Amino acid sequence: MMLEAIYHRPKLNWAYAYDLHTVHLRIRTKRGNVQKVSALTGDKYAWEETSAYVDMQVFASDDLFDYWEVAVNPPYRRLRYAFLIQSGKQLLWLTEEGYFEKEPQDSLWMFEYPFLNPADVFTPPAWVKEAVFYQIFPERFASGDPSLTPAHAEPWGGEPTPTNYFGGDLQGVIDHLDHLIELGITAIYFTPLFTSTTNHKYDTSDYLSVDPQFGTNETLKRLVEECHKRGIRVLLDAVFNHCGHKFAPFVDVLEKGAQSRYADWFHVKDWPLRVEDGIPTYETFAFEPIMPKLNTENDEVKEYLLNVAEYWIREVGIDGWRLDVANEVDHQFWRLFRDRVKRINPDAYLFGEIWHDSLMWLQGDQFDAIMNYPFTSAVFDYIANDKLDGAGFANKVGAQLASYQRQVSETTFNLLGSHDTPRLLTQCGNDARKVKLASLLLFAFPGTPCIYYGDEIGMSGGGDPECRRCMEWDASRQDRDLFEFFRGLIALRKSSEALRTGSVRFLHAKAGDARLVLERVHENEHVLILVNAGRRSASLSVEAGGGARVWRDAFEGTAAAPDGGKLQVKLPPYGYAVLRAD
Amino acid sequence: MMLEAIYHRPKLNWAYAYDLHTVHLRIRTKRGNVQKVSALTGDKYAWEETSAYVDMQVFASDDLFDYWEVAVNPPYRRLRYAFLIQSGKQLLWLTEEGYFEKEPQDSLWMFEYPFLNPADVFTPPAWVKEAVFYQIFPERFASGDPSLTPAHAEPWGGEPTPTNYFGGDLQGVIDHLDHLIELGITAIYFTPLFTSTTNHKYDTSDYLSVDPQFGTNETLKRLVEECHKRGIRVLLDAVFNHCGHKFAPFVDVLEKGAQSRYADWFHVKDWPLRVEDGIPTYETFAFEPIMPKLNTENDEVKEYLLNVAEYWIREVGIDGWRLDVANEVDHQFWRLFRDRVKRINPDAYLFGEIWHDSLMWLQGDQFDAIMNYPFTSAVFDYIANDKLDGAGFANKVGAQLASYQRQVSETTFNLLGSHDTPRLLTQCGNDARKVKLASLLLFAFPGTPCIYYGDEIGMSGGGDPECRRCMEWDASRQDRDLFEFFRGLIALRKSSEALRTGSVRFLHAKAGDARLVLERVHENEHVLILVNAGRRSASLSVEAGGGARVWRDAFEGTAAAPDGGKLQVKLPPYGYAVLRAD
Repeated sequence: MMLEAIYHRPKLNWAYAYDLHTVHLRIRTKRGNVQKVSALTGDKYAWEETSAYVDMQVFASDDLFDYWEVAVNPPYRRLRYAFLIQSGKQLLWLTEEGYFEKEPQDSLWMFEYPFLNPADVFTPPAWVKEAVFYQIFPERFASGDPSLTPAHAEPWGGEPTPTNYFGGDLQGVIDHLDHLIELGITAIYFTPLFTSTTNHKYDTSDYLSVDPQFGTNETLKRLVEECHKRGIRVLLDAVFNHCGHKFAPFVDVLEKGAQSRYADWFHVKDWPLRVEDGIPTYETFAFEPIMPKLNTENDEVKEYLLNVAEYWIREVGIDGWRLDVANEVDHQFWRLFRDRVKRINPDAYLFGEIWHDSLMWLQGDQFDAIMNYPFTSAVFDYIANDKLDGAGFANKVGAQLASYQRQVSETTFNLLGSHDTPRLLTQCGNDARKVKLASLLLFAFPGTPCIYYGDEIGMSGGGDPECRRCMEWDASRQDRDLFEFFRGLIALRKSSEALRTGSVRFLHAKAGDARLVLERVHENEHVLILVNAGRRSASLSVEAGGGARVWRDAFEGTAAAPDGGKLQVKLPPYGYAVLRAD
Repeated sequence: MMLEAIYHRPKLNWAYAYDLHTVHLRIRTKRGNVQKVSALTGDKYAWEETSAYVDMQVFASDDLFDYWEVAVNPPYRRLRYAFLIQSGKQLLWLTEEGYFEKEPQDSLWMFEYPFLNPADVFTPPAWVKEAVFYQIFPERFASGDPSLTPAHAEPWGGEPTPTNYFGGDLQGVIDHLDHLIELGITAIYFTPLFTSTTNHKYDTSDYLSVDPQFGTNETLKRLVEECHKRGIRVLLDAVFNHCGHKFAPFVDVLEKGAQSRYADWFHVKDWPLRVEDGIPTYETFAFEPIMPKLNTENDEVKEYLLNVAEYWIREVGIDGWRLDVANEVDHQFWRLFRDRVKRINPDAYLFGEIWHDSLMWLQGDQFDAIMNYPFTSAVFDYIANDKLDGAGFANKVGAQLASYQRQVSETTFNLLGSHDTPRLLTQCGNDARKVKLASLLLFAFPGTPCIYYGDEIGMSGGGDPECRRCMEWDASRQDRDLFEFFRGLIALRKSSEALRTGSVRFLHAKAGDARLVLERVHENEHVLILVNAGRRSASLSVEAGGGARVWRDAFEGTAAAPDGGKLQVKLPPYGYAVLRAD
């Protein structure tokens, strides 16, 4: 048994409350090295009466490791536990004190999940599991009120630069809600709407007003109402790491220096404020002088921003916040933020912009989710970049699933692109077939999927500013086939509990092989997702589990029957199939 | 290279702020498998200008792994990093994306420590590193005011039962402060003092009054003043997981049932409150009916307990809290608790009763420390239980040091016994030589050492209630030699920055060998601790580092000179030496 590979620790993603009655235990072993793992669990004050072994299952694997899991219901909300690990003929018990060849007689030094307190159970809003998101960059989605269009705006559809304008506004969004409804969208994430000096609005001048270019607070309120009528939730972008250089307190500090009553609202390294060799003497986002970092440890700043967070929920009825540059703000601030927001709307969805490992923000005290760019990266490396074969993709995603508690995976914010990345079609080398494969994977995994505006009709563009082109509203210039594919994909996801919250298993994922078969199962529902990421057509012979006699192709409607327990499927180059047990 | 053994993750004890300017990075490799590790670090927005390799050092090892560490000062408070690992001729870079054979050209998918925010820097009170604690169980320390002694109390020095009384009180403590001063104590931790129905007082009836058996709030105030005059800090025991059955809100619930306005102050599983088959229908500590668990998620309960915490600091001037059954209370409550307490006394020391892995309470948002029973266990398994040889002890302690951030190790609450364990002398089989060895180890490691009242004069006793015997004040029945040893040990620690905060290295720790040499170094100060835990005398030849020409025995005062760079030391059975470079 390779002891060096075995990993467990209490709490985090290894021993956590999944709900008020359930604790999930996990352990890692070297891949293929261990045949069986059981958890020995019980109540520390009634060990004799309650202790029992429960078998664990491998729920994910990556290139080096298998990850085992079991759900336990502690009868008295307390849990002591150890693991019994079998590799070949070797049997070892693992406790917090190390490895033993005999069953420990005393539970004292086993692992401990001390008490299942409701306050510590991480419960993201349930609606997020069901949602389909759409991201809108408001300056570029639609112009609905020409009177608001800036005088220097360019004609709709021109080439974006870092600084030019085209006149998108909130009325434009209201005017085009039918597009979202037709697609099947149930939630919108807007990049910033508040008054600022740029086209992207990430340099807030006034946190309490909608930018006049987009409309008024009343327009936003009307937009939210129109969305809610249609079953669409609305989330805004909270840019709390930094403000803009026209934010009144910063203007005051620029004017009055250390004497300003707002001097402590910022992180000033040296007075007077200035930029030397490209580096501001105050902390900023990156080295950007127009984005001074806010001192979120100052009580006044905290109160100001928390009021902002509450204001838009209370006054305008928004359904949550996306948190910009979330990992550069202190954890203490986010804890307060969650507490204050959830007190007025327990169903608010709070997701952070974090591109890296985010476990320490996802313990139930800070965010509900993060923007899952690591998933994005795995999908493109498999579908578009020739960096991962089927096994490589399965291993990456397996590691990601193992890295977080199950409820995190179920409600994480999955995306294939945003205002910060090249567009989906461009990432896919302008091959719509690959766009479909990538999108199928987006919708086939746990986590709430988000479509970046225009990706559904085949818009293209590299990184910022190209990915921020004006939405194409001329149907003749839209890829309507792609649009219909997305409609079908969304409808499929909505109809399938298995796709949203079912178990995840790779039935086919091999080295040097671009094919992939993913199985999702929820109770009696059984779905197979088949992907051929290769440039040649490919056949797959798939073990059809669940005993169904007929499987139906979710897109084509055709039926297939297993032959000798196996489904024979042929996929075109960059082809796919989704089979559902009838 | 054994990749399966390598472990790193951002945050926690692997990448953390040590102070406002310093981030510690750590990585684990298979023991002896890797010759060199460097960290590649830089600022993500100025990678070209700032990126550099820094060598890491092995700072701890256990039976399976080496743990490497390096301190980094990020120039702009942001850190991207990767590791370069060398095993034999193999060189690999480790990033968040996995292993690479070439240096990654892009820092995007490296690991990230996003921003060094002061609010997230875990800073336990600095005084704790310098402190020497003494734990007092007040019913058994000294009787100073006979008028308070309960009528049914037994004569001082009798055999304790779970329920009997002997009349210890606070005046008794005041009367014997000279004993503590003589010993060198600088802080007292009292088990509970508030009004309750038992001799141990862990079933609080009234959180705002000193138990009349012990004195009044005024007596406690006087005691704290007398202690402070003498440079002794005073900590009380916060029993917030549960109250006692005579606590007024619980009495109200017992009387009025679900109609009580305090019904939600507790965790009631079924009305009316009762005990069925030994199991209360309300949550309790263990299954103890007289200790109903408090609902620390109820806003009124929170406010009540937080007021209690503030009251004793503000009104009586105590210096911190020991938190009873700390891991069964929700994390959210402890975060509030820390915030409220530190606002009125930033120097308050908050340490929790947690016997198990405590990392998730030691991230700077909850406790400063925990009662380090795993260290206790390692010491006895080495010195008294014949379970660990020198290597085994070094490995256990190595794993413990690697499990926590350095500031945690420096201020953790180390102890060899308490009111919940058999006494030190009894654990040591009544062998005072082993008591000395164990205590030397207690004082030779980072962490604040605590002496349980009476251990310093050789009191004995098994588990509760034996370990709660009356303090022996008859000098003729005290082990005065042991007392003098403790005096010397405390004086030694106070005189040695190296013992308190220096680096830790085992110069001799071998399998099947009861000898141990521990080196502590701080700047120019160099201390060697030599231990012979064997029943035969033993010689040690120790590499004398630091270039000192003369080493002095801290206890005997004798001098020794290295011969060929080595010190030759002979230790009696269960003997020790502490050598300081002159």
